[in-house]
Amino acid sequence: MASSYLSFRNSVPWLILVLEFLLLICFFFFSPHAENPSSEFYPAFQDVNHMVIFGFGFFLVVLRRYGFSSTGFNFLLIALGVQCSMLVDLLVSLWVQEHEGGMRRLARAVVSMTAVVISTGAVLGKANPVQLIVMTLVELSVFRVSRWINGRFLEVEDNLTLMHVHLFGAYFGLAVTSRFPAPPPGLDKSRSSPRSDLFSVLGTVFVWVFWPSFSCIWEISVLNTYFALAVSAVSAFMLSALTSKDGKFRMTHIHSAVLAGGVTISYTVHIIHQPWIAMLLGLLGSVISILGSHCLQRCFNPPLKIQDTSGVHFTFGLPAVLGAVAAVVVFVVNEGTETQWNNLSSLGELVFVRVGAFCQTISTALVTGFLTGLLLNIKLFKIVPVSKYFDDQFYWEFPHLSVGF
Amino acid sequence: MASSYLSFRNSVPWLILVLEFLLLICFFFFSPHAENPSSEFYPAFQDVNHMVIFGFGFFLVVLRRYGFSSTGFNFLLIALGVQCSMLVDLLVSLWVQEHEGGMRRLARAVVSMTAVVISTGAVLGKANPVQLIVMTLVELSVFRVSRWINGRFLEVEDNLTLMHVHLFGAYFGLAVTSRFPAPPPGLDKSRSSPRSDLFSVLGTVFVWVFWPSFSCIWEISVLNTYFALAVSAVSAFMLSALTSKDGKFRMTHIHSAVLAGGVTISYTVHIIHQPWIAMLLGLLGSVISILGSHCLQRCFNPPLKIQDTSGVHFTFGLPAVLGAVAAVVVFVVNEGTETQWNNLSSLGELVFVRVGAFCQTISTALVTGFLTGLLLNIKLFKIVPVSKYFDDQFYWEFPHLSVGF
Amino acid sequence: MASSYLSFRNSVPWLILVLEFLLLICFFFFSPHAENPSSEFYPAFQDVNHMVIFGFGFFLVVLRRYGFSSTGFNFLLIALGVQCSMLVDLLVSLWVQEHEGGMRRLARAVVSMTAVVISTGAVLGKANPVQLIVMTLVELSVFRVSRWINGRFLEVEDNLTLMHVHLFGAYFGLAVTSRFPAPPPGLDKSRSSPRSDLFSVLGTVFVWVFWPSFSCIWEISVLNTYFALAVSAVSAFMLSALTSKDGKFRMTHIHSAVLAGGVTISYTVHIIHQPWIAMLLGLLGSVISILGSHCLQRCFNPPLKIQDTSGVHFTFGLPAVLGAVAAVVVFVVNEGTETQWNNLSSLGELVFVRVGAFCQTISTALVTGFLTGLLLNIKLFKIVPVSKYFDDQFYWEFPHLSVGF
Repeated sequence: MASSYLSFRNSVPWLILVLEFLLLICFFFFSPHAENPSSEFYPAFQDVNHMVIFGFGFFLVVLRRYGFSSTGFNFLLIALGVQCSMLVDLLVSLWVQEHEGGMRRLARAVVSMTAVVISTGAVLGKANPVQLIVMTLVELSVFRVSRWINGRFLEVEDNLTLMHVHLFGAYFGLAVTSRFPAPPPGLDKSRSSPRSDLFSVLGTVFVWVFWPSFSCIWEISVLNTYFALAVSAVSAFMLSALTSKDGKFRMTHIHSAVLAGGVTISYTVHIIHQPWIAMLLGLLGSVISILGSHCLQRCFNPPLKIQDTSGVHFTFGLPAVLGAVAAVVVFVVNEGTETQWNNLSSLGELVFVRVGAFCQTISTALVTGFLTGLLLNIKLFKIVPVSKYFDDQFYWEFPHLSVGF
Repeated sequence: MASSYLSFRNSVPWLILVLEFLLLICFFFFSPHAENPSSEFYPAFQDVNHMVIFGFGFFLVVLRRYGFSSTGFNFLLIALGVQCSMLVDLLVSLWVQEHEGGMRRLARAVVSMTAVVISTGAVLGKANPVQLIVMTLVELSVFRVSRWINGRFLEVEDNLTLMHVHLFGAYFGLAVTSRFPAPPPGLDKSRSSPRSDLFSVLGTVFVWVFWPSFSCIWEISVLNTYFALAVSAVSAFMLSALTSKDGKFRMTHIHSAVLAGGVTISYTVHIIHQPWIAMLLGLLGSVISILGSHCLQRCFNPPLKIQDTSGVHFTFGLPAVLGAVAAVVVFVVNEGTETQWNNLSSLGELVFVRVGAFCQTISTALVTGFLTGLLLNIKLFKIVPVSKYFDDQFYWEFPHLSVGF
Repeated sequence: MASSYLSFRNSVPWLILVLEFLLLICFFFFSPHAENPSSEFYPAFQDVNHMVIFGFGFFLVVLRRYGFSSTGFNFLLIALGVQCSMLVDLLVSLWVQEHEGGMRRLARAVVSMTAVVISTGAVLGKANPVQLIVMTLVELSVFRVSRWINGRFLEVEDNLTLMHVHLFGAYFGLAVTSRFPAPPPGLDKSRSSPRSDLFSVLGTVFVWVFWPSFSCIWEISVLNTYFALAVSAVSAFMLSALTSKDGKFRMTHIHSAVLAGGVTISYTVHIIHQPWIAMLLGLLGSVISILGSHCLQRCFNPPLKIQDTSGVHFTFGLPAVLGAVAAVVVFVVNEGTETQWNNLSSLGELVFVRVGAFCQTISTALVTGFLTGLLLNIKLFKIVPVSKYFDDQFYWEFPHLSVGF
């Protein structure tokens, strides 16, 4: 114990120091163009930034004794990851000879971090900071490569490649967490408390409110996103009462399903022209999220050994799959009605490309996530003993008498 | 008990499902124009949205065991109500042949929801979700009709009709809540706890900070609104220390009075040109709020049987009345000095119109609120037994051991 | 006790009333131009406003039994101080014949309040509201005079004079607090609790996220500010693990060091053109903050008797000194390379002016802070007995059974 503590102590700060040093040197050579942000762009960027750091930080406060780590490590990973993501973006754009302002790059870096935040939610409470940092670096690079493949070979538009961020994050995280030792069932620390739930609601509402700004950054209709989110929130309450005992609401359902509509719509928001389609997608997103959590957790999780601390599979994974499918359907219908179903072969080709981008993303996420999970569980990283899972006191000094969270 | 539980379980989700289904069909036929929001409009819209959902959600966390329901139901009602409000607005505008962008409609729908949120504050902890949803639907429709009457017959400008939102919400809520069985006095659950008070402060500060964005949406001077709010906040502390025992501050006073200035000024902000008038109105708003709460609660509430869980009468009702009166006075003085008091008959007519709009709004609110209260207390809606008032556990699953809020 | 209570009761509300009355009269004669805010300016103003009121309000919730007062008094002081600051600004601009819109003045008033908020952090829990209000009035006036000296005699640009706000606030606060009786060591109330720490994190994240809007208001590059903040946050974790026992993170370190980068960069952000310099400054800011807190607290505080409840010396004081020094270095290097080190005498003069502005600000802050501290501890202000330090119950009614914060 003592020795692994020491090695943990030795490794975290030095790892961060080396990384920051490398970043500093890299930015000395490759510097983004620090233009003045246009006053139109800045507020939307600020919203997304706020949502990722504050919203997701408190969104993850679901465990009763893990509040400091949930918000703190989220903050650490984003502050570090945005720099790395920006650097990777600069290097890639040097290669492909692309010029763009620094603020847009920064916004894209912050949006990319959503993938990492979602993956963090899956391994929440199991991974120590060293593992989380390594995961962040691997995930960011792999996601950039996956986006590059989508853009280069499947000719997906650059902005649209970012829409796979929830899909990638969720399945990468699930693959990673499957390689961690399972916590003993019935562990008290793995549950929430009314207080942690209230902080989590606070974060969820923040994420919900700022979600349309994602659309605003890419100058896409905010209205449809808002409608999808609204229907999704309403359906979350409906389905929660339907599936739970006694018809009571369950906070975990609300927590995961209110955002499902936003995830689902993000794939199609640029090609949807009518609110009712957005509303339908919001409803379906919510349905797949809650029914998924209801059925899968009972039937599949034990055999498949899916561990998923904060339910990212239902909140982001399944709705993203639904969204990708819906995007293909909407696209086919749109194109088909436009060409009066005359040009079926070219339509088929376009569909093939979209399905290909989806399959490439999800398989890359699963495979690299699995490998990352294996990598993180080698002895070098001093894996956290199962008894210390979900516990702030393993990472944080408590000068105060600890009376639970 | 068991049977009412079951019927409750049966009714909430199905009611929501039917509503969402109807909304979906309606939006299929009447679809708002989903234009790209102008980058100038979006941030102010986002502020108001954030304020209504997050700010008011936590503003209502005043009861020690009702945190989940306060934030959760507020969220549900707004997500549902915005869709309904938007639909009503679309139908009305079809009728009056008015064309407007979807984002402005959405902003108006969100602002209209303030009335519902305020009414919810009055019945907080007493109404079950079915009752709340029915109340939302009735209130939104009635408020739209009241605005239409003001606009059509009293020729109030369209934007100005929205300023009655606090007045309408407060008195509608008070009329509704008067028809609910009174909770037994001295109920421990009807009090706040230091923790719930702190969350409530969090919400109040949010509402306070975003209040000037209300003005910004209608492109009216932000400065005067800010001054009214600032003076109102300062006076709240002053009056709280003056009226309470031992000269201590009382959180409930701060909670209600800091917003009073914002409510008061909202009627006059477009015709005030000097900050000192705004400051004076902020001061008076705060005075009427705290003295009202101090005097009325002692003298009038018991005979009048005003029940008012979160004090909306003092926070929104009285300051709105004051604001409406002040608007008439400021208008008379402005017009009078402009025409050198020559055209008194036309001035009288204009005053009559304004007073008429005020009287129409408040009487519509009281009468329809009263009727709604009667409607909500028929057996069909399975009224909550008094012993289950103010209790999260009646509506929410607590998988965690409950240790109070 | 009873008599000091009574006099406290007598003085707080009347002091506020007299102040508001004076402000009302002054604004009757000198009224700012209440123009419509440009849609570009408003969101950034709103961010800064939100950060100062909400962010700093919860940033200060570090003591376990002082949550109400931390947020409440911060709110009171800002609402009052913004009005005073605006008035002082109007009077000064009447004198120097300067015309400017009301919104810009308001933004400057809100930024100036940061100094007061920082000073409040130093005397947190020791000063009663009367003392805080007097301190606010004195500090605002002195800061305006100090800015005026910098602008008039040292020819510092008007916007840049505001950058000394953290330096001034921190050292003024430290000088004031040195004149208060020291709390007995080992007082339980002077420590934080896990819950108060979580609220404090909430506030800190808010301040961190909105910090770049400071830059946005003056239309300076946001990107470099963001990078400095990000590096600073990452380094805070690194240094916290390095300096604390067992390699655990300490929340107090994170709390103070994540903002250090923002403070440091604020002096140089307008003359830095490359992100790596911003990153380096963010790193150094974090280092000086945590090493300062680690070393100084052990070695210097006992002999120097520095009392500093919420660590403003390390959070704002030392990083501001570093930033001021860095500003001179960066300026010399920039100017020197531009003129190829030919015009050393004029360079020397410019450096002298900058160093002069720094020395003038810090010495004014220390001297006036010291005098204010002496003034606040005369009998008239009924100083708080040491046993009542850090206690909400001394100022607030607790109608609920108090179970700690």
